[in-house]
Amino acid sequence: MTYSTLTNHFNRISHIESALGVLHWDMSTMMPQGGAAGRGDQLATLNGIAHGMRTDERIADWLSAADGEQLDDWQRANLNELNREYANATVLPAQFVEAFSRACTQCETVWRKARGANDFASLAPALNEVVKLVREKAQILSEHHGLSLYDSLLDQYDPGTRSADVDVLFEELEGFLPDLLGQVIERQERAGMVALQGPFSVESQRTLGLKIMEILGFDFEHGRLDVSAHPFCGGSADDVRITTRYSVDDFTQSLMGVIHETGHALYELGLPIQWRGQPVGKARGMSMHESQSLLMEMQACRSREFLQFVTPMLRDSFNGEGEAWTTENLYRLYTRVERGLIRVDADEVSYPLHVILRYRLERALLSGDLQVGDLPGAWRDGMRTLLGVEPPDDRDGCMQDIHWNMGAIGYFPTYTLGAMNAAQLFEAAVRSDAEILPGIAGGDFKPLVAWLRENVHGKASRYSMSELMTRATGRPLEVSVFREHLERRYLG
Amino acid sequence: MTYSTLTNHFNRISHIESALGVLHWDMSTMMPQGGAAGRGDQLATLNGIAHGMRTDERIADWLSAADGEQLDDWQRANLNELNREYANATVLPAQFVEAFSRACTQCETVWRKARGANDFASLAPALNEVVKLVREKAQILSEHHGLSLYDSLLDQYDPGTRSADVDVLFEELEGFLPDLLGQVIERQERAGMVALQGPFSVESQRTLGLKIMEILGFDFEHGRLDVSAHPFCGGSADDVRITTRYSVDDFTQSLMGVIHETGHALYELGLPIQWRGQPVGKARGMSMHESQSLLMEMQACRSREFLQFVTPMLRDSFNGEGEAWTTENLYRLYTRVERGLIRVDADEVSYPLHVILRYRLERALLSGDLQVGDLPGAWRDGMRTLLGVEPPDDRDGCMQDIHWNMGAIGYFPTYTLGAMNAAQLFEAAVRSDAEILPGIAGGDFKPLVAWLRENVHGKASRYSMSELMTRATGRPLEVSVFREHLERRYLG
Repeated sequence: MTYSTLTNHFNRISHIESALGVLHWDMSTMMPQGGAAGRGDQLATLNGIAHGMRTDERIADWLSAADGEQLDDWQRANLNELNREYANATVLPAQFVEAFSRACTQCETVWRKARGANDFASLAPALNEVVKLVREKAQILSEHHGLSLYDSLLDQYDPGTRSADVDVLFEELEGFLPDLLGQVIERQERAGMVALQGPFSVESQRTLGLKIMEILGFDFEHGRLDVSAHPFCGGSADDVRITTRYSVDDFTQSLMGVIHETGHALYELGLPIQWRGQPVGKARGMSMHESQSLLMEMQACRSREFLQFVTPMLRDSFNGEGEAWTTENLYRLYTRVERGLIRVDADEVSYPLHVILRYRLERALLSGDLQVGDLPGAWRDGMRTLLGVEPPDDRDGCMQDIHWNMGAIGYFPTYTLGAMNAAQLFEAAVRSDAEILPGIAGGDFKPLVAWLRENVHGKASRYSMSELMTRATGRPLEVSVFREHLERRYLG
Repeated sequence: MTYSTLTNHFNRISHIESALGVLHWDMSTMMPQGGAAGRGDQLATLNGIAHGMRTDERIADWLSAADGEQLDDWQRANLNELNREYANATVLPAQFVEAFSRACTQCETVWRKARGANDFASLAPALNEVVKLVREKAQILSEHHGLSLYDSLLDQYDPGTRSADVDVLFEELEGFLPDLLGQVIERQERAGMVALQGPFSVESQRTLGLKIMEILGFDFEHGRLDVSAHPFCGGSADDVRITTRYSVDDFTQSLMGVIHETGHALYELGLPIQWRGQPVGKARGMSMHESQSLLMEMQACRSREFLQFVTPMLRDSFNGEGEAWTTENLYRLYTRVERGLIRVDADEVSYPLHVILRYRLERALLSGDLQVGDLPGAWRDGMRTLLGVEPPDDRDGCMQDIHWNMGAIGYFPTYTLGAMNAAQLFEAAVRSDAEILPGIAGGDFKPLVAWLRENVHGKASRYSMSELMTRATGRPLEVSVFREHLERRYLG
């Protein structure tokens, strides 16, 4: 069967991708500085080889021959994904891909320096070049896929998601979130909370993190926990490695960070083994991936039930005593809401507002309605309108994120789609299995993980995100469940 | 220039080899067990790709075109090495390489079990198959290179070394070592020594190891120290990673182990940067590599001078007090000589006798003078004659080493050639720079490492091993300096 020729070829590509996953992990966790140049060579050569294999001209023939063969549903879905990957790999001319990659590397380097110096003017030319090339890229993709400019980018991160749907969801969010934010903050100020006093030893934090990972169902036969400057979930299938960073002044961030990355890892580890190495066996886009981390972090583990379970462990880990270490106070700390400047530090109430701002701005940048030079002003205006705060400088304003500087336009919405997916999936899970909530309250995540494996992880890319949500929760993504979750947790 | 086309191609191969180096290191130090199958796929695919590139048919044309081009001495030496690598990559039919690889993997698996069960009979058929295939391999190589069967194998590990020379050296060693061994043991029994009392914490051992590595000149910007079941020096150029293992009952082994691997690492780190990725830029064979580890371990760091320097550090690290912790006693412990059964545990006096035994036996296996079934008896006879002990079983007899089981016949002599190279190089270094010995006594290895960099590391594969030794020491390898070293240290 030609179909087998095709899948063998893609299996080999996936072996290189897995090797790259380990090399990337190593670069962020283990590699000494002096290894950077050599690692760059290794990555470039392996990426070049993988690219050559992805664009192999025989694939076109294989794809059309396989289309005429007898395939089951999963194989047919895999063939669709193979077509999609081949199109994405070949639609951009090699020369353009190189120029784009160079411009992004260049801009990322400039950005690191400009951000440190709080100097947007020095970033603007490089960013302008990237935006110009992203627009070119979108034009090529758009012609090929028959999508709008923005949708052709969004589709690369979240296959099947369209900005028309995002618009509706985000408008609904914008309709109530700013008000809700104000109410919650007022309420929390009245209630008050007690800060935890450090220092908290890194070794205790690590031991605690490993314990919680085990409780959540992380399989240490197939993964690790390490340290990196920017936490991530990486490695390869069957060997999923998450990272965190520790601050001796504050253990709460690394703890929730570990839980967040464990959510990502459980998705990867739960993907169907028989589809390893094939496109249909991969996770279904960025918003589903984010939903799995946020379901663990926001839905399950910032709940009062889980914090009650974990309170004695926290006290034991850090010799905590007194009113700061009550479940009630820990819950207040873990659900604190603020009008912050920084997206990555934001709580679940204000986070979507940070995303909506970026979504609007990146669409305007792409269409040309907004010039790169006008970004700082537009950012300040947006922050004032949506969050009621204004950044004092561009460092903590429009220069805070790496995404645009590395050419990633169309990525931001997936964070908030993920948060809403998480709420809707969690609600459906709890509804369908009465063991799940008591499990979380007792430190037994098996019922929850079993439901996720059945309804999300094990389905990989068999269905579109929308169909996956409908099959798992009874309906496509809506704002309502997320809204109810926020109102119950923060105003209840 | 075609020569550049050729070197670009081999640079790309070296990037894959470097990536494989990191993946192998990871497999032994970091990878969770469950990642083994996936890692196997990654290694197989990358090795397959590298093999395809090494046997690329265009190389033959490039090699002959480059031969007519104007090249400097290093480029000419590189072209010779490129010819050698291409010949080695292409001379064996692909089908044979596969069959050989399968037989070795199979035999290695059987060996692990058979050794555990002390059951040579169950190993014999698999080992017989490997020996048969090694003979076939040697025949093909032999026809191509115009060497004897054994030399064609030896040449793969130690280019240019011939068994006729090894015979002469090993006969001379056999002429005095058994007697010397007896004298040393008698003398040491009279003198006595005091055992060190543990436990010695792993953390203290690691801290001490890192300190000693720094003293020896290891550059932590370009390497690491980690733990693995079997210590090795691996990673990639510019990122050289050594490993050790710790026993809480005995710190002396991990300390000398770290020094040994640091010697290997300094060689790798000292290879000329401008020849990275090219065959001429690689280390000059296994016996030169072993000479660099043994020079650090045996010549420099088991000396009374170095042990005197390190005594206070050892006392500090492990709160050592009393007569066991004098330099004199530590020196006795570190130069203890025994009639042992196990090669990897052997001291520098008895080690060559272990190697001579294996050298004789593997030559007889290859020629057919010895049948695999007769190996246990021949081993016992040889041990009795050479070392004056007889193994009580095959587990600690002819089944102790992995080499033959993984198809490595012709490798063993390089250990002892390395030991003799080390003695001769160290003597020449000390003779040529009066700062070297006082440096070692004061914890300053810069003069020694500078000499090695100039005379060995920086020369990479520019010369044959014999020419390298002659240039560095004034004459080709002889037994005399090694003999004088042993007599001075153990009978002086």
